[in-house]
Amino acid sequence: LKAWVNGVETTAISVYDRGLQYGDGLFETMRMVDGDIKLWPCHLARLQQGCQQLGIPLDVERIEKQLALVRQYATIGVIKLIVTRGETQRGYRVSPGPQPNIICMCSELPTYPAEYYTQGVDVRLCQTQVNCNEQLAGIKHLNRLDNVLARMEWQDEFQEGLMCDDQGHIIEGTMSNIVFLDQESLVTPDLRRSGVAGIMRQRLLDMAEQRGIDTAIRPVELAEVKSFDAALLTNSLIGAWPVKQLDGYAYRVTPLVQSLVQMIQECQN
Amino acid sequence: LKAWVNGVETTAISVYDRGLQYGDGLFETMRMVDGDIKLWPCHLARLQQGCQQLGIPLDVERIEKQLALVRQYATIGVIKLIVTRGETQRGYRVSPGPQPNIICMCSELPTYPAEYYTQGVDVRLCQTQVNCNEQLAGIKHLNRLDNVLARMEWQDEFQEGLMCDDQGHIIEGTMSNIVFLDQESLVTPDLRRSGVAGIMRQRLLDMAEQRGIDTAIRPVELAEVKSFDAALLTNSLIGAWPVKQLDGYAYRVTPLVQSLVQMIQECQN
Repeated sequence: LKAWVNGVETTAISVYDRGLQYGDGLFETMRMVDGDIKLWPCHLARLQQGCQQLGIPLDVERIEKQLALVRQYATIGVIKLIVTRGETQRGYRVSPGPQPNIICMCSELPTYPAEYYTQGVDVRLCQTQVNCNEQLAGIKHLNRLDNVLARMEWQDEFQEGLMCDDQGHIIEGTMSNIVFLDQESLVTPDLRRSGVAGIMRQRLLDMAEQRGIDTAIRPVELAEVKSFDAALLTNSLIGAWPVKQLDGYAYRVTPLVQSLVQMIQECQN
Repeated sequence: LKAWVNGVETTAISVYDRGLQYGDGLFETMRMVDGDIKLWPCHLARLQQGCQQLGIPLDVERIEKQLALVRQYATIGVIKLIVTRGETQRGYRVSPGPQPNIICMCSELPTYPAEYYTQGVDVRLCQTQVNCNEQLAGIKHLNRLDNVLARMEWQDEFQEGLMCDDQGHIIEGTMSNIVFLDQESLVTPDLRRSGVAGIMRQRLLDMAEQRGIDTAIRPVELAEVKSFDAALLTNSLIGAWPVKQLDGYAYRVTPLVQSLVQMIQECQN
Protein backbone atom coordinates (compact mmCIF):
# COMPACT_ATOMS: atom_id res chain seq x y z
CA LEU A 1 0.00 0.00 0.00
CA LYS A 2 1.66 3.19 -1.17
CA ALA A 3 0.41 6.65 -2.07
CA TRP A 4 1.55 9.71 -3.98
CA VAL A 5 0.10 13.22 -3.91
CA ASN A 6 1.02 15.43 -6.86
CA GLY A 7 3.96 13.18 -7.64
CA VAL A 8 5.40 13.09 -4.12
CA GLU A 9 5.28 9.89 -2.13
CA THR A 10 3.12 10.69 0.89
CA THR A 11 -0.14 9.65 2.50
CA ALA A 12 -0.91 13.23 3.58
CA ILE A 13 -3.39 15.56 1.95
CA SER A 14 -4.54 18.96 3.17
CA VAL A 15 -7.71 19.14 5.25
CA TYR A 16 -8.60 22.10 3.02
CA ASP A 17 -8.77 19.83 -0.03
CA ARG A 18 -12.24 20.07 -1.50
CA GLY A 19 -12.30 16.33 -2.01
CA LEU A 20 -12.56 15.99 1.75
CA GLN A 21 -14.66 19.07 2.33
CA TYR A 22 -17.35 18.36 -0.26
CA GLY A 23 -16.44 15.22 -2.18
CA ASP A 24 -15.47 17.67 -4.90
CA GLY A 25 -13.54 15.39 -7.23
CA LEU A 26 -13.45 12.15 -9.19
CA PHE A 27 -11.75 8.80 -9.09
CA GLU A 28 -10.83 5.78 -11.15
CA THR A 29 -9.97 2.32 -9.86
CA MET A 30 -7.83 0.40 -12.31
CA ARG A 31 -6.19 -2.95 -12.77
CA MET A 32 -2.47 -2.97 -13.54
CA VAL A 33 -0.80 -6.11 -14.90
CA ASP A 34 2.78 -6.20 -16.22
CA GLY A 35 2.97 -2.42 -15.84
CA ASP A 36 -0.01 -2.04 -18.13
CA ILE A 37 -3.01 -0.16 -16.77
CA LYS A 38 -5.84 -2.10 -18.33
CA LEU A 39 -8.29 -0.07 -20.41
CA TRP A 40 -6.47 3.14 -19.48
CA PRO A 41 -7.84 5.09 -22.48
CA CYS A 42 -11.38 4.28 -21.31
CA HIS A 43 -10.65 5.27 -17.70
CA LEU A 44 -9.03 8.50 -18.87
CA ALA A 45 -11.99 9.29 -21.12
CA ARG A 46 -14.44 8.87 -18.22
CA LEU A 47 -12.21 10.98 -15.97
CA GLN A 48 -12.09 13.69 -18.62
CA GLN A 49 -15.86 13.56 -19.01
CA GLY A 50 -16.25 13.86 -15.22
CA CYS A 51 -13.82 16.76 -14.99
CA GLN A 52 -15.69 18.52 -17.75
CA GLN A 53 -19.03 18.05 -16.00
CA LEU A 54 -17.65 19.32 -12.69
CA GLY A 55 -15.60 22.11 -14.26
CA ILE A 56 -12.26 20.76 -13.00
CA PRO A 57 -9.35 21.48 -15.37
CA LEU A 58 -7.54 18.22 -16.15
CA ASP A 59 -3.89 18.14 -17.14
CA VAL A 60 -3.50 14.72 -18.75
CA GLU A 61 0.26 15.01 -18.89
CA ARG A 62 0.44 15.58 -15.12
CA ILE A 63 -1.71 12.52 -14.55
CA GLU A 64 0.33 10.30 -16.83
CA LYS A 65 3.61 11.45 -15.26
CA GLN A 66 2.29 10.42 -11.88
CA LEU A 67 1.08 7.06 -13.08
CA ALA A 68 4.60 6.51 -14.43
CA LEU A 69 5.90 6.97 -10.87
CA VAL A 70 3.53 4.27 -9.64
CA ARG A 71 4.79 1.91 -12.33
CA GLN A 72 8.34 2.40 -11.10
CA TYR A 73 7.19 1.03 -7.76
CA ALA A 74 5.01 -1.86 -8.92
CA THR A 75 3.97 -3.51 -12.15
CA ILE A 76 0.98 -5.40 -10.80
CA GLY A 77 -1.74 -4.12 -8.51
CA VAL A 78 -4.76 -1.89 -8.16
CA ILE A 79 -4.25 1.77 -8.94
CA LYS A 80 -6.77 4.15 -7.48
CA LEU A 81 -6.47 7.61 -8.94
CA ILE A 82 -8.27 10.54 -7.30
CA VAL A 83 -8.46 13.99 -8.85
CA THR A 84 -9.90 16.71 -6.63
CA ARG A 85 -10.63 20.34 -7.43
CA GLY A 86 -7.83 21.31 -5.05
CA GLU A 87 -7.76 23.53 -1.98
CA THR A 88 -9.80 26.67 -1.39
CA GLN A 89 -11.00 28.81 1.47
CA ARG A 90 -14.08 27.78 3.43
CA GLY A 91 -17.31 27.83 1.42
CA TYR A 92 -18.71 26.17 -1.67
CA ARG A 93 -17.49 28.93 -3.93
CA VAL A 94 -14.61 28.08 -6.28
CA SER A 95 -12.42 31.15 -6.67
CA PRO A 96 -9.91 31.70 -8.04
CA GLY A 97 -9.32 28.44 -9.90
CA PRO A 98 -7.35 26.22 -7.52
CA GLN A 99 -4.80 23.69 -8.78
CA PRO A 100 -6.33 20.18 -8.78
CA ASN A 101 -4.74 17.63 -6.47
CA ILE A 102 -3.80 14.30 -8.01
CA ILE A 103 -3.64 11.33 -5.68
CA CYS A 104 -2.39 7.90 -6.75
CA MET A 105 -2.72 4.87 -4.52
CA CYS A 106 -1.32 1.46 -5.30
CA SER A 107 -2.49 -1.68 -3.52
CA GLU A 108 -2.36 -5.42 -4.07
CA LEU A 109 -4.47 -6.97 -6.77
CA PRO A 110 -7.32 -8.82 -5.09
CA THR A 111 -7.90 -12.46 -5.96
CA TYR A 112 -11.37 -13.97 -6.05
CA PRO A 113 -12.48 -17.60 -5.77
CA ALA A 114 -12.66 -19.34 -9.16
CA GLU A 115 -16.29 -20.34 -8.54
CA TYR A 116 -17.35 -16.69 -8.59
CA TYR A 117 -16.58 -16.84 -12.31
CA THR A 118 -17.92 -20.32 -13.00
CA GLN A 119 -20.91 -20.69 -10.67
CA GLY A 120 -21.66 -17.05 -9.97
CA VAL A 121 -22.17 -14.97 -6.85
CA ASP A 122 -24.95 -14.27 -4.35
CA VAL A 123 -26.44 -10.83 -4.60
CA ARG A 124 -28.53 -8.89 -2.12
CA LEU A 125 -31.19 -6.37 -2.96
CA CYS A 126 -30.23 -3.30 -0.90
CA GLN A 127 -32.69 -1.08 0.89
CA THR A 128 -30.41 1.92 0.52
CA GLN A 129 -31.44 3.93 -2.50
CA VAL A 130 -29.00 5.26 -4.99
CA ASN A 131 -28.75 9.07 -5.24
CA CYS A 132 -30.69 10.71 -8.05
CA ASN A 133 -29.22 13.70 -9.82
CA GLU A 134 -28.99 13.97 -13.59
CA GLN A 135 -26.00 16.29 -13.45
CA LEU A 136 -23.98 13.82 -11.39
CA ALA A 137 -25.14 10.56 -12.94
CA GLY A 138 -22.71 8.47 -14.97
CA ILE A 139 -19.46 10.02 -13.75
CA LYS A 140 -17.32 8.52 -10.98
CA HIS A 141 -17.34 11.40 -8.49
CA LEU A 142 -16.40 11.29 -4.82
CA ASN A 143 -19.96 11.59 -3.40
CA ARG A 144 -20.46 7.93 -2.62
CA LEU A 145 -22.31 7.80 0.70
CA ASP A 146 -25.17 5.87 -0.88
CA ASN A 147 -22.77 3.11 -1.92
CA VAL A 148 -21.21 3.10 1.56
CA LEU A 149 -24.59 2.78 3.29
CA ALA A 150 -25.69 0.06 0.89
CA ARG A 151 -22.48 -1.90 1.54
CA MET A 152 -23.11 -1.68 5.29
CA GLU A 153 -26.29 -3.74 4.88
CA TRP A 154 -24.44 -7.07 4.83
CA GLN A 155 -21.14 -8.71 5.81
CA ASP A 156 -20.06 -11.90 4.02
CA GLU A 157 -23.39 -13.48 3.11
CA PHE A 158 -23.35 -11.84 -0.31
CA GLN A 159 -20.67 -10.83 -2.78
CA GLU A 160 -22.57 -7.76 -3.95
CA GLY A 161 -25.75 -5.76 -3.36
CA LEU A 162 -27.94 -4.08 -5.96
CA MET A 163 -29.34 -0.60 -5.51
CA CYS A 164 -32.56 0.90 -6.86
CA ASP A 165 -33.52 4.50 -7.45
CA ASP A 166 -36.48 6.25 -5.82
CA GLN A 167 -38.75 5.08 -8.63
CA GLY A 168 -38.01 1.40 -8.18
CA HIS A 169 -35.59 0.99 -11.07
CA ILE A 170 -32.60 -1.29 -10.69
CA ILE A 171 -29.53 0.91 -11.20
CA GLU A 172 -26.28 -0.82 -10.21
CA GLY A 173 -24.37 -2.76 -7.59
CA THR A 174 -22.50 -1.00 -4.78
CA MET A 175 -19.21 -1.57 -6.63
CA SER A 176 -20.32 -2.92 -10.00
CA ASN A 177 -22.75 -2.57 -12.87
CA ILE A 178 -25.33 -5.17 -13.73
CA VAL A 179 -26.14 -6.54 -17.15
CA PHE A 180 -29.13 -8.86 -17.63
CA LEU A 181 -29.33 -11.53 -20.31
CA ASP A 182 -32.44 -12.55 -22.08
CA GLN A 183 -32.19 -15.31 -24.67
CA GLU A 184 -29.74 -13.72 -27.08
CA SER A 185 -29.76 -10.11 -25.90
CA LEU A 186 -28.19 -7.98 -23.18
CA VAL A 187 -30.08 -5.37 -21.15
CA THR A 188 -28.44 -2.95 -18.73
CA PRO A 189 -30.00 -0.11 -16.73
CA ASP A 190 -30.17 3.39 -18.10
CA LEU A 191 -27.85 5.55 -15.94
CA ARG A 192 -29.02 9.02 -16.93
CA ARG A 193 -30.46 9.77 -13.47
CA SER A 194 -28.25 7.64 -11.21
CA GLY A 195 -25.24 5.38 -11.13
CA VAL A 196 -21.75 5.15 -12.56
CA ALA A 197 -21.23 4.22 -16.19
CA GLY A 198 -18.68 1.45 -15.71
CA ILE A 199 -15.74 0.88 -18.03
CA MET A 200 -16.25 -2.89 -17.95
CA ARG A 201 -19.98 -2.51 -18.56
CA GLN A 202 -19.20 -0.60 -21.75
CA ARG A 203 -16.57 -3.17 -22.68
CA LEU A 204 -19.09 -5.97 -22.27
CA LEU A 205 -21.67 -4.17 -24.39
CA ASP A 206 -19.08 -3.48 -27.10
CA MET A 207 -17.91 -7.09 -27.13
CA ALA A 208 -21.47 -8.37 -27.31
CA GLU A 209 -22.27 -6.08 -30.21
CA GLN A 210 -19.16 -7.21 -32.06
CA ARG A 211 -20.49 -10.75 -31.76
CA GLY A 212 -23.83 -9.70 -33.19
CA ILE A 213 -25.69 -9.86 -29.88
CA ASP A 214 -28.40 -7.25 -29.35
CA THR A 215 -27.81 -4.86 -26.47
CA ALA A 216 -30.21 -2.40 -24.87
CA ILE A 217 -29.63 0.39 -22.36
CA ARG A 218 -33.01 1.16 -20.84
CA PRO A 219 -34.79 1.57 -17.49
CA VAL A 220 -35.12 -1.81 -15.75
CA GLU A 221 -37.98 -2.15 -13.27
CA LEU A 222 -37.31 -4.07 -10.10
CA ALA A 223 -40.30 -6.30 -10.89
CA GLU A 224 -38.63 -7.21 -14.18
CA VAL A 225 -35.49 -8.84 -12.79
CA LYS A 226 -37.10 -12.27 -12.58
CA SER A 227 -37.96 -12.19 -16.27
CA PHE A 228 -34.32 -12.49 -17.32
CA ASP A 229 -32.44 -15.78 -17.78
CA ALA A 230 -29.14 -14.62 -16.41
CA ALA A 231 -27.25 -11.63 -15.07
CA LEU A 232 -23.65 -10.47 -14.92
CA LEU A 233 -21.87 -8.04 -12.60
CA THR A 234 -19.00 -6.06 -14.05
CA ASN A 235 -16.22 -3.82 -12.80
CA SER A 236 -12.61 -3.14 -13.68
CA LEU A 237 -11.18 -5.33 -10.96
CA ILE A 238 -13.47 -8.35 -10.99
CA GLY A 239 -14.09 -8.35 -14.72
CA ALA A 240 -17.46 -10.11 -14.92
CA TRP A 241 -19.17 -12.40 -12.42
CA PRO A 242 -22.34 -14.31 -13.25
CA VAL A 243 -25.12 -13.78 -10.69
CA LYS A 244 -26.08 -17.07 -9.05
CA GLN A 245 -29.01 -15.65 -7.16
CA LEU A 246 -30.51 -12.22 -6.57
CA ASP A 247 -32.72 -11.77 -3.53
CA GLY A 248 -33.47 -15.52 -3.57
CA TYR A 249 -34.20 -15.73 -7.29
CA ALA A 250 -31.84 -18.12 -9.10
CA TYR A 251 -30.24 -17.22 -12.41
CA ARG A 252 -28.62 -19.65 -14.82
CA VAL A 253 -25.02 -19.62 -15.95
CA THR A 254 -25.79 -20.07 -19.62
CA PRO A 255 -23.18 -20.83 -22.31
CA LEU A 256 -23.49 -17.21 -23.45
CA VAL A 257 -22.75 -16.02 -19.90
CA GLN A 258 -19.73 -18.33 -19.73
CA SER A 259 -18.33 -17.07 -22.98
CA LEU A 260 -18.84 -13.40 -22.03
CA VAL A 261 -17.11 -13.93 -18.68
CA GLN A 262 -14.20 -15.53 -20.49
CA MET A 263 -13.95 -12.77 -23.07
CA ILE A 264 -13.84 -10.18 -20.31
CA GLN A 265 -11.18 -12.17 -18.47
CA GLU A 266 -9.03 -12.21 -21.59
CA CYS A 267 -9.04 -8.44 -21.91
CA GLN A 268 -8.07 -8.16 -18.24
CA ASN A 269 -4.82 -10.11 -18.39
CA LEU B 1 -6.68 29.89 9.44
CA LYS B 2 -5.63 27.00 11.62
CA ALA B 3 -6.53 23.31 11.74
CA TRP B 4 -6.38 20.39 14.14
CA VAL B 5 -6.75 16.70 13.37
CA ASN B 6 -7.59 14.49 16.35
CA GLY B 7 -6.34 17.17 18.71
CA VAL B 8 -3.01 17.77 16.97
CA GLU B 9 -2.38 21.03 15.18
CA THR B 10 -1.85 20.06 11.55
CA THR B 11 -3.40 20.58 8.15
CA ALA B 12 -2.60 17.00 7.06
CA ILE B 13 -5.08 14.16 6.84
CA SER B 14 -4.50 10.70 5.39
CA VAL B 15 -5.44 10.08 1.78
CA TYR B 16 -7.02 6.86 3.09
CA ASP B 17 -9.54 8.84 5.12
CA ARG B 18 -13.02 7.86 3.97
CA GLY B 19 -14.07 11.50 4.09
CA LEU B 20 -11.87 12.05 1.05
CA GLN B 21 -12.47 8.66 -0.56
CA TYR B 22 -16.29 8.70 -0.38
CA GLY B 23 -17.43 11.82 1.44
CA ASP B 24 -18.05 9.40 4.29
CA GLY B 25 -18.56 11.83 7.16
CA LEU B 26 -20.37 14.88 8.46
CA PHE B 27 -19.65 18.50 9.26
CA GLU B 28 -20.87 21.50 11.22
CA THR B 29 -20.04 25.14 10.56
CA MET B 30 -20.40 27.25 13.68
CA ARG B 31 -20.11 30.80 14.84
CA MET B 32 -17.88 31.45 17.85
CA VAL B 33 -18.11 34.73 19.76
CA ASP B 34 -16.35 35.39 23.08
CA GLY B 35 -15.27 31.75 23.19
CA ASP B 36 -18.88 30.66 23.01
CA ILE B 37 -19.86 28.37 20.15
CA LYS B 38 -23.33 29.65 19.36
CA LEU B 39 -26.11 27.05 19.47
CA TRP B 40 -23.58 24.30 20.17
CA PRO B 41 -26.18 21.94 21.67
CA CYS B 42 -28.17 22.16 18.42
CA HIS B 43 -25.10 21.57 16.24
CA LEU B 44 -24.09 18.63 18.40
CA ALA B 45 -27.58 17.15 18.22
CA ARG B 46 -27.56 17.30 14.42
CA LEU B 47 -24.08 15.80 14.31
CA GLN B 48 -25.22 12.98 16.58
CA GLN B 49 -28.27 12.40 14.40
CA GLY B 50 -26.05 12.30 11.32
CA CYS B 51 -23.57 9.91 12.92
CA GLN B 52 -26.42 7.64 13.91
CA GLN B 53 -27.83 7.63 10.37
CA LEU B 54 -24.43 6.84 8.87
CA GLY B 55 -23.43 4.38 11.60
CA ILE B 56 -20.40 6.40 12.71
CA PRO B 57 -19.67 6.07 16.43
CA LEU B 58 -19.43 9.54 17.98
CA ASP B 59 -17.39 10.23 21.11
CA VAL B 60 -18.79 13.55 22.35
CA GLU B 61 -16.05 13.93 24.94
CA ARG B 62 -13.36 13.66 22.24
CA ILE B 63 -15.14 16.33 20.18
CA GLU B 64 -15.53 18.71 23.10
CA LYS B 65 -11.89 18.31 24.12
CA GLN B 66 -10.84 19.30 20.64
CA LEU B 67 -13.14 22.29 20.52
CA ALA B 68 -11.52 23.37 23.79
CA LEU B 69 -8.16 23.41 21.99
CA VAL B 70 -9.59 25.70 19.33
CA ARG B 71 -10.84 28.05 22.01
CA GLN B 72 -7.33 28.31 23.41
CA TYR B 73 -6.26 29.67 20.05
CA ALA B 74 -9.14 32.03 19.30
CA THR B 75 -12.32 33.24 20.94
CA ILE B 76 -13.98 34.65 17.87
CA GLY B 77 -14.27 33.04 14.45
CA VAL B 78 -15.86 30.32 12.37
CA ILE B 79 -15.32 26.77 13.54
CA LYS B 80 -15.78 24.08 10.96
CA LEU B 81 -15.89 20.64 12.50
CA ILE B 82 -15.61 17.55 10.29
CA VAL B 83 -16.13 14.02 11.59
CA THR B 84 -15.24 11.25 9.14
CA ARG B 85 -15.64 7.51 9.53
CA GLY B 86 -11.84 7.23 9.64
CA GLU B 87 -9.41 5.27 7.50
CA THR B 88 -9.94 1.87 5.93
CA GLN B 89 -8.54 -0.25 3.13
CA ARG B 90 -9.73 0.31 -0.42
CA GLY B 91 -13.42 -0.46 -1.01
CA TYR B 92 -16.78 0.69 0.31
CA ARG B 93 -16.84 -1.94 3.00
CA VAL B 94 -16.40 -0.73 6.60
CA SER B 95 -14.49 -3.37 8.53
CA PRO B 96 -13.43 -3.55 11.23
CA GLY B 97 -14.82 -0.39 12.77
CA PRO B 98 -12.22 2.33 12.14
CA GLN B 99 -11.61 5.19 14.58
CA PRO B 100 -13.37 8.35 13.34
CA ASN B 101 -11.17 11.30 12.45
CA ILE B 102 -12.09 14.62 14.00
CA ILE B 103 -11.00 17.73 12.14
CA CYS B 104 -11.40 21.26 13.53
CA MET B 105 -10.75 24.32 11.42
CA CYS B 106 -10.84 27.86 12.68
CA SER B 107 -11.12 30.85 10.37
CA GLU B 108 -12.07 34.51 10.59
CA LEU B 109 -15.68 35.46 11.16
CA PRO B 110 -17.01 36.86 7.89
CA THR B 111 -18.66 40.26 7.94
CA TYR B 112 -21.54 41.11 5.65
CA PRO B 113 -22.84 44.49 4.44
CA ALA B 114 -25.50 45.92 6.76
CA GLU B 115 -27.94 46.29 3.88
CA TYR B 116 -28.08 42.51 3.47
CA TYR B 117 -29.98 42.54 6.77
CA THR B 118 -32.05 45.66 6.17
CA GLN B 119 -32.80 45.64 2.44
CA GLY B 120 -32.23 41.99 1.68
CA VAL B 121 -30.21 40.06 -0.87
CA ASP B 122 -30.49 39.03 -4.51
CA VAL B 123 -31.14 35.37 -5.06
CA ARG B 124 -30.69 33.26 -8.15
CA LEU B 125 -32.75 30.24 -9.07
CA CYS B 126 -30.14 27.55 -9.79
CA GLN B 127 -30.37 25.04 -12.61
CA THR B 128 -28.40 22.48 -10.64
CA GLN B 129 -30.77 20.12 -8.88
CA VAL B 130 -30.33 19.10 -5.29
CA ASN B 131 -29.62 15.37 -4.69
CA CYS B 132 -32.57 13.22 -3.72
CA ASN B 133 -32.10 10.43 -1.22
CA GLU B 134 -34.34 9.96 1.80
CA GLN B 135 -31.61 8.25 3.81
CA LEU B 136 -29.24 11.17 3.38
CA ALA B 137 -31.70 14.05 3.58
CA GLY B 138 -31.62 16.40 6.55
CA ILE B 139 -28.14 15.57 7.85
CA LYS B 140 -25.04 17.62 7.04
CA HIS B 141 -22.90 14.97 5.34
CA LEU B 142 -19.85 15.50 3.17
CA ASN B 143 -21.49 14.65 -0.18
CA ARG B 144 -22.02 18.20 -1.36
CA LEU B 145 -21.25 18.21 -5.07
CA ASP B 146 -24.72 19.47 -5.87
CA ASN B 147 -24.15 22.55 -3.71
CA VAL B 148 -20.73 23.08 -5.32
CA LEU B 149 -22.15 22.89 -8.87
CA ALA B 150 -25.02 25.19 -7.96
CA ARG B 151 -22.59 27.75 -6.50
CA MET B 152 -20.58 27.67 -9.71
CA GLU B 153 -23.55 29.09 -11.62
CA TRP B 154 -22.83 32.68 -10.61
CA GLN B 155 -20.06 34.95 -9.33
CA ASP B 156 -21.02 38.16 -7.49
CA GLU B 157 -24.36 39.03 -9.10
CA PHE B 158 -26.24 37.21 -6.36
CA GLN B 159 -25.70 36.54 -2.69
CA GLU B 160 -27.29 33.09 -2.81
CA GLY B 161 -28.90 30.60 -5.18
CA LEU B 162 -31.91 28.37 -4.55
CA MET B 163 -31.99 24.73 -5.56
CA CYS B 164 -34.97 22.59 -6.53
CA ASP B 165 -35.40 18.84 -6.44
CA ASP B 166 -36.20 16.68 -9.46
CA GLN B 167 -39.92 17.23 -8.93
CA GLY B 168 -39.74 21.02 -9.05
CA HIS B 169 -39.94 21.66 -5.32
CA ILE B 170 -37.90 24.47 -3.81
CA ILE B 171 -35.56 22.84 -1.27
CA GLU B 172 -32.84 25.19 -0.03
CA GLY B 173 -30.08 27.63 -0.89
CA THR B 174 -26.56 26.43 -1.68
CA MET B 175 -25.43 27.46 1.83
CA SER B 176 -28.69 28.35 3.56
CA ASN B 177 -32.29 27.37 4.16
CA ILE B 178 -35.23 29.38 2.94
CA VAL B 179 -38.31 30.36 4.90
CA PHE B 180 -41.22 32.05 3.16
CA LEU B 181 -43.62 34.46 4.87
CA ASP B 182 -47.26 34.75 4.09
CA GLN B 183 -49.25 37.35 6.04
CA GLU B 184 -48.73 36.09 9.58
CA SER B 185 -47.33 32.62 8.91
CA LEU B 186 -44.00 30.99 8.02
CA VAL B 187 -43.59 28.24 5.45
CA THR B 188 -40.37 26.32 4.86
CA PRO B 189 -39.69 23.38 2.52
CA ASP B 190 -40.07 19.82 3.71
CA LEU B 191 -36.57 18.27 3.74
CA ARG B 192 -37.44 14.58 3.94
CA ARG B 193 -36.11 13.83 0.46
CA SER B 194 -33.41 16.47 0.04
CA GLY B 195 -31.55 19.25 1.78
CA VAL B 196 -29.94 20.02 5.11
CA ALA B 197 -32.10 20.78 8.13
CA GLY B 198 -30.41 23.99 9.26
CA ILE B 199 -29.88 24.93 12.88
CA MET B 200 -30.88 28.55 12.24
CA ARG B 201 -33.95 27.45 10.27
CA GLN B 202 -35.11 25.50 13.32
CA ARG B 203 -34.25 28.44 15.56
CA LEU B 204 -36.34 30.76 13.42
CA LEU B 205 -39.31 28.37 13.46
CA ASP B 206 -39.04 27.99 17.24
CA MET B 207 -38.86 31.73 17.79
CA ALA B 208 -41.82 32.35 15.51
CA GLU B 209 -43.89 29.76 17.33
CA GLN B 210 -43.01 31.31 20.66
CA ARG B 211 -44.43 34.55 19.31
CA GLY B 212 -47.64 32.82 18.29
CA ILE B 213 -46.86 32.85 14.58
CA ASP B 214 -48.05 29.83 12.60
CA THR B 215 -45.29 27.77 10.99
CA ALA B 216 -45.56 25.04 8.39
CA ILE B 217 -43.00 22.58 7.05
CA ARG B 218 -44.36 21.31 3.74
CA PRO B 219 -43.42 20.80 0.10
CA VAL B 220 -43.14 24.17 -1.67
CA GLU B 221 -43.67 24.15 -5.42
CA LEU B 222 -41.47 26.38 -7.54
CA ALA B 223 -44.61 27.96 -9.02
CA GLU B 224 -45.69 28.94 -5.51
CA VAL B 225 -42.76 31.20 -4.64
CA LYS B 226 -44.43 34.27 -6.10
CA SER B 227 -47.46 33.80 -3.86
CA PHE B 228 -45.50 34.69 -0.71
CA ASP B 229 -45.03 38.23 0.62
CA ALA B 230 -41.50 37.79 1.84
CA ALA B 231 -38.68 35.30 2.26
CA LEU B 232 -35.72 34.82 4.59
CA LEU B 233 -32.47 32.93 4.15
CA THR B 234 -30.94 31.41 7.25
CA ASN B 235 -27.67 29.80 8.28
CA SER B 236 -25.46 29.74 11.34
CA LEU B 237 -23.02 32.34 10.05
CA ILE B 238 -25.28 34.87 8.37
CA GLY B 239 -28.18 34.51 10.79
CA ALA B 240 -31.10 35.61 8.64
CA TRP B 241 -31.16 37.69 5.47
CA PRO B 242 -34.38 38.94 3.88
CA VAL B 243 -34.66 38.09 0.19
CA LYS B 244 -34.90 41.25 -1.90
CA GLN B 245 -35.56 39.42 -5.13
CA LEU B 246 -35.65 35.85 -6.32
CA ASP B 247 -35.23 35.22 -10.03
CA GLY B 248 -36.49 38.75 -10.75
CA TYR B 249 -39.49 38.57 -8.44
CA ALA B 250 -39.37 41.23 -5.68
CA TYR B 251 -40.16 40.39 -2.07
CA ARG B 252 -40.99 42.92 0.63
CA VAL B 253 -39.07 43.48 3.84
CA THR B 254 -42.12 43.54 6.07
CA PRO B 255 -42.09 44.59 9.74
CA LEU B 256 -42.39 40.90 10.66
CA VAL B 257 -39.32 40.09 8.55
CA GLN B 258 -37.41 42.94 10.21
CA SER B 259 -38.27 41.74 13.68
CA LEU B 260 -37.36 38.10 12.89
CA VAL B 261 -34.00 39.17 11.44
CA GLN B 262 -33.33 41.15 14.58
CA MET B 263 -34.32 38.32 16.90
CA ILE B 264 -31.97 35.97 15.07
CA GLN B 265 -29.18 38.54 15.27
CA GLU B 266 -29.63 38.77 19.01
CA CYS B 267 -29.16 35.04 19.52
CA GLN B 268 -26.00 35.18 17.40
CA ASN B 269 -24.07 37.70 19.49
